[in-house]
Amino acid sequence: MSELRKDPVLERWTLISPERAARPSEYEESELERAPKPCPFCPGREHETPHEIFALRPKGGAPDSPGWRVRLVPNRFPALSLDAGAPARDDPFFVARPGVGEHDVLIETPDHDADLGSMGLEQATLVLRVLRERLAALGREPRLAYVMAFENHGAAAGATIEHAHAQILSIDFVPRVIRAEMENGMAFHARHGRCLWCEWIERERHVGSRVVRDADGFFTAAAYAPRFEYETWIAPLAHASSFERGTPEQDEGLARALTDAIARLQGVLGHPAYNFILHTAPCRTDTLPSYHWHLEVLPRTARLAGFEWGSGVHIVATPPEEAAARLAGVAVSAAP
Amino acid sequence: MSELRKDPVLERWTLISPERAARPSEYEESELERAPKPCPFCPGREHETPHEIFALRPKGGAPDSPGWRVRLVPNRFPALSLDAGAPARDDPFFVARPGVGEHDVLIETPDHDADLGSMGLEQATLVLRVLRERLAALGREPRLAYVMAFENHGAAAGATIEHAHAQILSIDFVPRVIRAEMENGMAFHARHGRCLWCEWIERERHVGSRVVRDADGFFTAAAYAPRFEYETWIAPLAHASSFERGTPEQDEGLARALTDAIARLQGVLGHPAYNFILHTAPCRTDTLPSYHWHLEVLPRTARLAGFEWGSGVHIVATPPEEAAARLAGVAVSAAP
Repeated sequence: MSELRKDPVLERWTLISPERAARPSEYEESELERAPKPCPFCPGREHETPHEIFALRPKGGAPDSPGWRVRLVPNRFPALSLDAGAPARDDPFFVARPGVGEHDVLIETPDHDADLGSMGLEQATLVLRVLRERLAALGREPRLAYVMAFENHGAAAGATIEHAHAQILSIDFVPRVIRAEMENGMAFHARHGRCLWCEWIERERHVGSRVVRDADGFFTAAAYAPRFEYETWIAPLAHASSFERGTPEQDEGLARALTDAIARLQGVLGHPAYNFILHTAPCRTDTLPSYHWHLEVLPRTARLAGFEWGSGVHIVATPPEEAAARLAGVAVSAAP
Repeated sequence: MSELRKDPVLERWTLISPERAARPSEYEESELERAPKPCPFCPGREHETPHEIFALRPKGGAPDSPGWRVRLVPNRFPALSLDAGAPARDDPFFVARPGVGEHDVLIETPDHDADLGSMGLEQATLVLRVLRERLAALGREPRLAYVMAFENHGAAAGATIEHAHAQILSIDFVPRVIRAEMENGMAFHARHGRCLWCEWIERERHVGSRVVRDADGFFTAAAYAPRFEYETWIAPLAHASSFERGTPEQDEGLARALTDAIARLQGVLGHPAYNFILHTAPCRTDTLPSYHWHLEVLPRTARLAGFEWGSGVHIVATPPEEAAARLAGVAVSAAP
């Protein structure tokens, strides 16, 4: 059972999740020593995950059997669960409450060696469709306040399993990064009568030097003040606050933009570890004029050091304009 | 020349520092392939650093020559400098200004293989004395607003050189983590008439289960809501807001507490990468009743993943009470 704790000094929460200690890691030993292990996300090993929540099986077939193209399962080592139980401790200094939520894994492809840079447009579109439908379903659960979807790709990005998978972590509060984005978006809207991210797209287009791609209804640019070199943001051109209210056309447009972004990062950086993180509005918020959903892609090009932890200020060596020029220069084969 | 940029969405600053791109890394290749390279911080190689700012040479000797016990030099690849020059761009959306500051390196010992867990009390006391004197000197420079001192130890903690060294990065603004600590400290003081960290020590003593050490004028406990497993905080028992206003007795007490903390982490975790970060009041602030300087020790036991980046919420598996019990159980030889 997990517990959420608030730091007594800062507005910083930590989820203490002892169940996670049991999870195995493919990456524990060095890459060289590692003997190939059977992958729990590969077809034929469906029994190694909890029973599937959903799978796309174009030719039919029983649940938890091969033949799927995308498969959604509960995390075997969930960071939290909906049956939390224990009440909050009543200490105003050391604040704690139960960690309530869901933790799903979305296996993106049956192909152990594929990733978003190589799986192709059709497969990536299926991934985003299942992700969107799952977010919509979770958003109807009244105990949940926020659904965070992300991918950890590669050991340096926090992945413990190599096979491409996204994670969907649903929680009963709106986390501080999203709350801060919403507050700043509201303040901007109050001052300028306009969405902050719509303004961002317009101003980035005007400046030009950080734009990586502008097509298929999605805008991709190198982040102006990145945390990591080559950090890339993707946002829909049309204002929308909730990813999960999108359409199949949106899935395909986003699949084009996301696979393009990953392929460009791989073109410049080899095969970097990366996280992509979906930033969307909280559950059951009506369409918000002051929030705009988007994806942040963080290539893990550096390790955070003492200065970043102590100050909250990041240091990068490559200017985003140079990063954008290199990313834009990668020859990416246009998806069919 | 470096530039500070403010993220257009969040209150998050990034220092774009192209000079840093040139810096070599001992850790670029895997540990196994790496050929031993001459270390620029070892005695006899003083010419490989910029001219020293200060060194402790008990038997005398010329600057930039061997015979030192602790050596302070400018960073050869500074993240910023005092001769910043270029004016801020006048764009209210994409805010930028020159990065103004100093970047020093404090070589902690002539012994390439020593670290804070093994260098001994006398050497660690010298390190903290030079650190304190340097912070006091930098605090008198009117262009500087904050001096951040930290150590990156091991590649996973962001170090590029193995030889034990701390860094002192001085900047012309108070970074957001410190500002948030000061604001919350002031709010707590206004409500309760008392320092938040003095209260923290008293409450941790009362709870008991997270205390690791309480001796020599310093208090060590496992952080209540840690970002990393085994995260440890060290604070002076006597209220004080500025580390650099301390005394030689303070240097020795802190050296005992810090070397003890590192030795305990090494006892439990082997030789983890870690950061220690000094949190102290801004330059030229009078003694503040609502701020209390302290050290945070972050063993880099995990890699931050997508959920942490997207939410600002950390996930750890080991409860701090269990971490404290293991740390307290390590047999550390009492320093002389």
